[in-house]
Amino acid sequence: MTTTTDTPTQTRQVVLAERPHGAPTPANFRIETVALPELAEGEVLVANTVMSVDPYMRGRMNDVKSYIPPFQIDQPLDGGAVGEVIASRNPHLPVGAHVTHGLGWREHAVLPAGSGRAVDVDAVPASAYLGPLGMPGLTAYVGLTAIAEMKEGETVFISGAAGAVGSYAGQIAKALGAGRVVGSAGSAAKVERLRELGFDAAFNYKDGPVRESLREAAPDGIDVYFDNVGGDHLEAAISAMGTFGRIAMCGAISQYNATEPAPGPRNLALAIGKCLTLRGFVVGQYSHLAGEFRERVVPWVADGTLRYDETFRDGLDAAPQAFLDLLEGANLGKMLVRL
Amino acid sequence: MTTTTDTPTQTRQVVLAERPHGAPTPANFRIETVALPELAEGEVLVANTVMSVDPYMRGRMNDVKSYIPPFQIDQPLDGGAVGEVIASRNPHLPVGAHVTHGLGWREHAVLPAGSGRAVDVDAVPASAYLGPLGMPGLTAYVGLTAIAEMKEGETVFISGAAGAVGSYAGQIAKALGAGRVVGSAGSAAKVERLRELGFDAAFNYKDGPVRESLREAAPDGIDVYFDNVGGDHLEAAISAMGTFGRIAMCGAISQYNATEPAPGPRNLALAIGKCLTLRGFVVGQYSHLAGEFRERVVPWVADGTLRYDETFRDGLDAAPQAFLDLLEGANLGKMLVRL
Repeated sequence: MTTTTDTPTQTRQVVLAERPHGAPTPANFRIETVALPELAEGEVLVANTVMSVDPYMRGRMNDVKSYIPPFQIDQPLDGGAVGEVIASRNPHLPVGAHVTHGLGWREHAVLPAGSGRAVDVDAVPASAYLGPLGMPGLTAYVGLTAIAEMKEGETVFISGAAGAVGSYAGQIAKALGAGRVVGSAGSAAKVERLRELGFDAAFNYKDGPVRESLREAAPDGIDVYFDNVGGDHLEAAISAMGTFGRIAMCGAISQYNATEPAPGPRNLALAIGKCLTLRGFVVGQYSHLAGEFRERVVPWVADGTLRYDETFRDGLDAAPQAFLDLLEGANLGKMLVRL
Repeated sequence: MTTTTDTPTQTRQVVLAERPHGAPTPANFRIETVALPELAEGEVLVANTVMSVDPYMRGRMNDVKSYIPPFQIDQPLDGGAVGEVIASRNPHLPVGAHVTHGLGWREHAVLPAGSGRAVDVDAVPASAYLGPLGMPGLTAYVGLTAIAEMKEGETVFISGAAGAVGSYAGQIAKALGAGRVVGSAGSAAKVERLRELGFDAAFNYKDGPVRESLREAAPDGIDVYFDNVGGDHLEAAISAMGTFGRIAMCGAISQYNATEPAPGPRNLALAIGKCLTLRGFVVGQYSHLAGEFRERVVPWVADGTLRYDETFRDGLDAAPQAFLDLLEGANLGKMLVRL
């Protein structure tokens, strides 16, 4: 085994203290110190440098069967992170290598054999592997291509467009030849930022009914809707869609803290006459598109075609609040925690 | 021009007297006698022998823009019909030919040049061209194949399964190799009939919550849902679906008489994690599949693989009530009016 001189024997991690009911609170989380195990063959010890908080994590805090198992009480949370290998029993991930992996929410992580992917943090910052080059980037790409089957010249509407997935989706749509890209966000500053990022139109959904704002922003209707929000946005998009419109159902952040099931769109039956397709997806089912994604999107990140905003918080102790703030829309682009 | 000896100079037709508010009533309709015009070049005069009433006609009675223009007040309704040519200025449709066309709700119709399709009423009864070999048959076929992309071995759930489209869809699903076909209907007699038609399981949706009945009928979940009903059925289907399940949204008869928008399925966000596809369709957009449909389905009708129930009413005066009864589910299979 190769190690650095001062290999830690314990680490700090965030555990789920109790399941949130409605909006999560700091009391739902607890930070604890635990011993680090000896490395087994093939394992590496990573000092995390940056971790991701993502909206989908809210769903995992409920005790419901879903596409991904729920977080367990008194167990550490997990999620995307990048770190540096500080002890290794894996020749493919030597000490000093930077790896992206799924054991965030802790300062150090022991990666099981076969997990983790080495990344080049000289070419782009480590955090980019949690954003445009990571799960959120692939989500945006898959949603537009495999799910919504966006074609050149089409009008694309994206909700939550100042968030990570939404802001990438808007720029990727433009890069793929969309005719018009419209975004919604929750503040004037975010709307201004969307225009800077190349959105053809953008509106603050808090300024009035989404249906009216969307009609102004896309007077000829929309062909594709990339839904990160659900609720009123989804209903407005169904109304605005033309024949054979397609909706990529990626997220429903407006409902994540709901304690009662939210009513679905009252106009869903319009999907019949308009021949609409609503297709839900989770990016984990589309990892076979990761190669194609990297081939197309890495150059856009490298040459600045795809710009990515980041909102940083510092230190593991700030992670729970970073997550709570994310659900309230306090972030511009990707919400991240430096460790 | 060739004619029979006693070519009528006038006919009776059903006009929309006023738009229904909620459930239609007989007062919404009026029967009137009108003069028949002289035939222009290419036109034929048809004595209708049987006409169709279909659930989609309810939508056309509202003054809303949709995939098909609304019926107009004081103008005749229209819809599928079969009749015999009794005067012709079209050499392709001579006197004595039987034609299927879109000018039902009247005893005689003048078909514009280029419209109408000659059918063989010796091989199958005229009414079959309004049912399994007509628009409802094509709807069932398209919904299962092009829309829901049903695969062999899958479990298929069909609502409104004792109606025309539903009963054909169930039998076509079996013929296409579905592993299990489950139907719902609104009476014990209909449920019994579904079992006779080869449905593997069937339930009366009035006996209890659809969700529970469906769970019993399809304990391992469903892969495909053919939705003729909307409402509770759609919500139950979303709950019962496995990953990558598909919903063909064909109709929403439970909502057709609603005066307020009905809430959509409260569990629609499940479509994200389960990677579901909900796809609406109207058969008029899929007429390019009519050839393939006839090639596959005509033999099933001829050899009795696809059996079709018919509920007949007699005479044009009975047509409005036939339509009202259809919306209440009084029909087994296709609701038709003999003229």
